[in-house]
Amino acid sequence: MIQFVSVENIISLIKSVGIETLIADIALRIEGDFKRWEEFDKQPRIPAHSDRGVIELMPTSDSTTYGFKYVNGHPLNEELGKQTVTGFGVLADMETGYPFFLCEMTILTALRTAAMSALAAKYLARDNAKTMAMIGTGCQAEFQAYGFKSLLGITDLHIFDIDAKAMDKFEANMNDKGFTITRCESTHDAVKGADIITTCTADKKQAKILTENMVGQGIHINAIGGDCPGKTELEKSILMKSDIFVEYPEQTWIEGEIQQLDKTHPITEIWRVFDDQIDGRTSESQTTIFDSVGFAIEDFSALCVIQSMTQDTEFSENLDLLALPDNPKNLFGMIKH
Amino acid sequence: MIQFVSVENIISLIKSVGIETLIADIALRIEGDFKRWEEFDKQPRIPAHSDRGVIELMPTSDSTTYGFKYVNGHPLNEELGKQTVTGFGVLADMETGYPFFLCEMTILTALRTAAMSALAAKYLARDNAKTMAMIGTGCQAEFQAYGFKSLLGITDLHIFDIDAKAMDKFEANMNDKGFTITRCESTHDAVKGADIITTCTADKKQAKILTENMVGQGIHINAIGGDCPGKTELEKSILMKSDIFVEYPEQTWIEGEIQQLDKTHPITEIWRVFDDQIDGRTSESQTTIFDSVGFAIEDFSALCVIQSMTQDTEFSENLDLLALPDNPKNLFGMIKH
Repeated sequence: MIQFVSVENIISLIKSVGIETLIADIALRIEGDFKRWEEFDKQPRIPAHSDRGVIELMPTSDSTTYGFKYVNGHPLNEELGKQTVTGFGVLADMETGYPFFLCEMTILTALRTAAMSALAAKYLARDNAKTMAMIGTGCQAEFQAYGFKSLLGITDLHIFDIDAKAMDKFEANMNDKGFTITRCESTHDAVKGADIITTCTADKKQAKILTENMVGQGIHINAIGGDCPGKTELEKSILMKSDIFVEYPEQTWIEGEIQQLDKTHPITEIWRVFDDQIDGRTSESQTTIFDSVGFAIEDFSALCVIQSMTQDTEFSENLDLLALPDNPKNLFGMIKH
Repeated sequence: MIQFVSVENIISLIKSVGIETLIADIALRIEGDFKRWEEFDKQPRIPAHSDRGVIELMPTSDSTTYGFKYVNGHPLNEELGKQTVTGFGVLADMETGYPFFLCEMTILTALRTAAMSALAAKYLARDNAKTMAMIGTGCQAEFQAYGFKSLLGITDLHIFDIDAKAMDKFEANMNDKGFTITRCESTHDAVKGADIITTCTADKKQAKILTENMVGQGIHINAIGGDCPGKTELEKSILMKSDIFVEYPEQTWIEGEIQQLDKTHPITEIWRVFDDQIDGRTSESQTTIFDSVGFAIEDFSALCVIQSMTQDTEFSENLDLLALPDNPKNLFGMIKH
């Protein structure tokens, strides 16, 4: 039997623990795991592309634990009334190779992405940052807002989405949750007076959601939506005038905003900032970008948090996924009449 | 909800359908899938090595369906009273990226390996083959025996294992199942008079389970145990005098018996034999080797068989692994208080 956290149980867990607490717990674990970056086996995710999207496996491991996530990205699913991204994850024991934990990760991916975004902003945004512009209020947006509230205390949000219904949904979900939400007419309108800009749109193409004239001095950009080959959100000139921080360069060069740049362009691995090897923000006037694509260690960290939090509680079940014969050499004994 | 086949249910399914029928069904599906080899996205499995073993992901896909298996190989698990190999598998829809099937694959891997071995032997062993030597009677052995009985009608078995208890177990399991089993004192003893030799031992090193003097004319060798880097079972000179058939060369060069050979050595992809592009056995005197390491398409085929066989039956359950919000843009709505 392995430990299993279903969709229903992760929802119950979030309601019980509180979303801000859970995101903070995941962020703390990500920070710790990124600080021991060199202990992990790392590789870019393994994609299977089709005309309509991509299915990916994202494995990583340290000396004791192996983890991977299955995740898809299908922008055209919207037409079918289906989600763009779904996922699940697994943890296994490196010593025996036995898997011991299976967890839904559609919702957990949204939590860990919010945790990672807010954690990076803690190191990269100005200390006095108060207002965040959110460009794109799709299914990640509420999680992002809670992440920035939990880790940076940001509650003043300027939102814009080309789909008015997506803004309606965001406002309905976040009403009376301690946020001050300003609904804007355009991206240009939304970024006015913002200290942080989060871009999270879903088009599978090279877009220019943000142009250089929209980005004033001292801004931190949390660029989430540019996350697969051919899909970017920022005008190249913004990248040229900013300091760029990434998760795992080998993957970000393929999937991130920096697809647009020459490979000699300087970028900084964010783990080195968490580990105090390199400064994050060094001046009030600097423009910083967290070019986030999502990396396997973030999923590993999130899975570890949920596994230990739910073990032997009502939030997990036993799943009969692993054949365990009494005599390991006698697998056939299990099926013998 | 996704379709889930547990360990308990795959055991019930095997008991209900019969192991010989099920292996034959899987072999038929593998044969068909291998015939359309070029329709699949293929890659060597993705390993995570530790001192004690390896954890692997094995993905493949055609234009409509994606599949992968999680599997480990930990020879030292025996010391811990645990199994060397465990696994599970998933199927997903390429159009939407949604996973739709999860299945135990510790037992199913043994079935598909037996199906693949016997299928290859149908093309490579002499038509009049009657006797099989089985070197190694570990947890794969009974499945192999049923595979060869099902596809080739072979019931005359010569068995040898350095562990007498492994032979006791095999004999106890296979007693009164329509086999004639001769227990041998040595590998040399077991291969005498055999038309087919199956090697399936578990040492994680370069071994010489079979030496050239043991292999007479016209033999087919079903080499299963040489299946990871540094782990082989056949003396090199046997390879030099035989015609060698493999699943996916890119993987077999890394993991199979042909690790021992120069990369210019001629080998034949077995799918071309199934597809009538290349002859299998061409003479009574030829020595043939199926250098089997296990390939992702075999798991894909096995998963497809079990999925369609168990859909909407008592052999599968619904598993709450996939978050499906009413409005796909409103994932947060699922966790809202």
